[in-house]
Amino acid sequence: MSRKAPAPPAKARETHAATAAEAAKRVAVIGAGAMGLGVAQSLKRAGMDVVGFDVSAAAKKRLVEAGVESAASAAAAAANADVLVVTVVNAEQTRLALLGPGGAAKAMKPDGVVVASATIAPDVARALAHEVEALGPAYLDAPISGGAAKSAKGELTVMASGKPAAFERARSVLEAMAATVYELGAEAGIGSSFKLVNQLLAGVHIAAACEAITFAKRLGLDMEMVYKVVTSSAGNSWMFENRVPHVLAGDYRPLSAVAIFTKDLGIASDVGRASNFPLPLTATALQMFLMTAAAGMARDDDASVARLFAQIAGLELPAAPNEP
Amino acid sequence: MSRKAPAPPAKARETHAATAAEAAKRVAVIGAGAMGLGVAQSLKRAGMDVVGFDVSAAAKKRLVEAGVESAASAAAAAANADVLVVTVVNAEQTRLALLGPGGAAKAMKPDGVVVASATIAPDVARALAHEVEALGPAYLDAPISGGAAKSAKGELTVMASGKPAAFERARSVLEAMAATVYELGAEAGIGSSFKLVNQLLAGVHIAAACEAITFAKRLGLDMEMVYKVVTSSAGNSWMFENRVPHVLAGDYRPLSAVAIFTKDLGIASDVGRASNFPLPLTATALQMFLMTAAAGMARDDDASVARLFAQIAGLELPAAPNEP
Repeated sequence: MSRKAPAPPAKARETHAATAAEAAKRVAVIGAGAMGLGVAQSLKRAGMDVVGFDVSAAAKKRLVEAGVESAASAAAAAANADVLVVTVVNAEQTRLALLGPGGAAKAMKPDGVVVASATIAPDVARALAHEVEALGPAYLDAPISGGAAKSAKGELTVMASGKPAAFERARSVLEAMAATVYELGAEAGIGSSFKLVNQLLAGVHIAAACEAITFAKRLGLDMEMVYKVVTSSAGNSWMFENRVPHVLAGDYRPLSAVAIFTKDLGIASDVGRASNFPLPLTATALQMFLMTAAAGMARDDDASVARLFAQIAGLELPAAPNEP
Repeated sequence: MSRKAPAPPAKARETHAATAAEAAKRVAVIGAGAMGLGVAQSLKRAGMDVVGFDVSAAAKKRLVEAGVESAASAAAAAANADVLVVTVVNAEQTRLALLGPGGAAKAMKPDGVVVASATIAPDVARALAHEVEALGPAYLDAPISGGAAKSAKGELTVMASGKPAAFERARSVLEAMAATVYELGAEAGIGSSFKLVNQLLAGVHIAAACEAITFAKRLGLDMEMVYKVVTSSAGNSWMFENRVPHVLAGDYRPLSAVAIFTKDLGIASDVGRASNFPLPLTATALQMFLMTAAAGMARDDDASVARLFAQIAGLELPAAPNEP
């Protein structure tokens, strides 16, 4: 159970605990999935006036249970907002939330700031920034990483780019949701490019961890000992250290799903192709996640690539205690 | 210059500083390249009676300069040795040193211990152990990692398997050359399997680091900032953190050469094929190292995969200060 739903602890950095100006700040959070719910909670904890929206009834319910006001539409959530944080899954949803019918960019304050946090292609971020800024609000290209647990604690990492004035106006919001805010440049597209490079590595490293740990099993090695040796050797990666325990525990409940990496490595592959740049490991890892998704595990934890290899090769990996 | 030839510091663990029994221990070191020279120096520093051998005149000269006796043949070095450390490059050289004409396994004490440290296939390690032990000496399947600098300091990592009695008799030698000695099982082949899994990950991670950092350059990102962001994010790996600075400095003097990974990922691929196990990322990374070697960089630093991608895509990476 230790992997599930960590309780949000009190925010350590008391500097964020609500000056009058920050407390008066009205913030809309569009998309209340694993990441958005935590962002909404973190902003609320910082004393801000937060309204959330999600198309899913279950997500709306979780918002309300967390004490966050839930609006009937993206536009209703955005009404009069100073800052609009978009924590949806992809580019299509980001566009719909901001610019679709009943979209939020028109409803928020014209001098407000959009913080767009989905992982999207850099050229899409540039196009969205252009369209949003034509309506008035500034646009921060601000992908996030860290997962649901860090989101709930307000300890995300934000890789952001945009106009310095937009950073100024959104700073209290960014700092309430993140432990680290990288300001990476003055134009949209840069933040998304950094995120893409990070996701490329993260995805390749997860797939490599799964390839290696199942190969170790095939070789007859003690997998717990492999974990111990590798994590203290030059073969280690952040992802190996973080994901292999899911395999060792036989626990594939999704902390981050396979579908996230078919999406993100898909974007990286598309961007590589569009810019005439070869990405052989990205392409290979993408195929491994696609095979895993095709085998019925798209919504399971991304360490399921190891289960795919075990199925293919007839290996017996550890099973969760509550499985038959 | 900070990357070159670190001076061997005094050994921190004084527990190794020569009991009478250890001081009397006679140790042969066959293969005095980057790793073997450091091993010989570390054993000498621990007060042991060390004789080295290498087929290369330059390596012999470095041994003598380091104050280590240099023998005329592997057998001469091994004469009457209690422990024989084989620090050559591959399986063929290991076999030649131990069992070839003038080989060392017959020359050493019949109750001695062979410490075989090259990265080789597990079934080759099992075969060598069988043949050596038929002659008398025990065999430890004991691949090392850590690089030349850690070798010189006696701070290698040893991933070893073999009979417990052999570990007992070789313990003072293993502890003088290594900071960490993993005892992974009672049979040859297990140590080599662990090393292979580690090398698989290390090789994939180096290739991934090179793919990612050159992609970042293509996207127009500040590479130093990419290094900073990735090393503090979930996309990090030990190899990304260690090798990307070579690219940022334009310094491809070999700390570990491309040829090491064409060899080690080649072994991993062979073992995978022989055991009917798919290794897609290993295969892809192997091709990337082969392309880099084919382009003339086999003896350069393994971060040269980034130079290959830069050449292919017409990117300008940082050049070393002393290059035109």
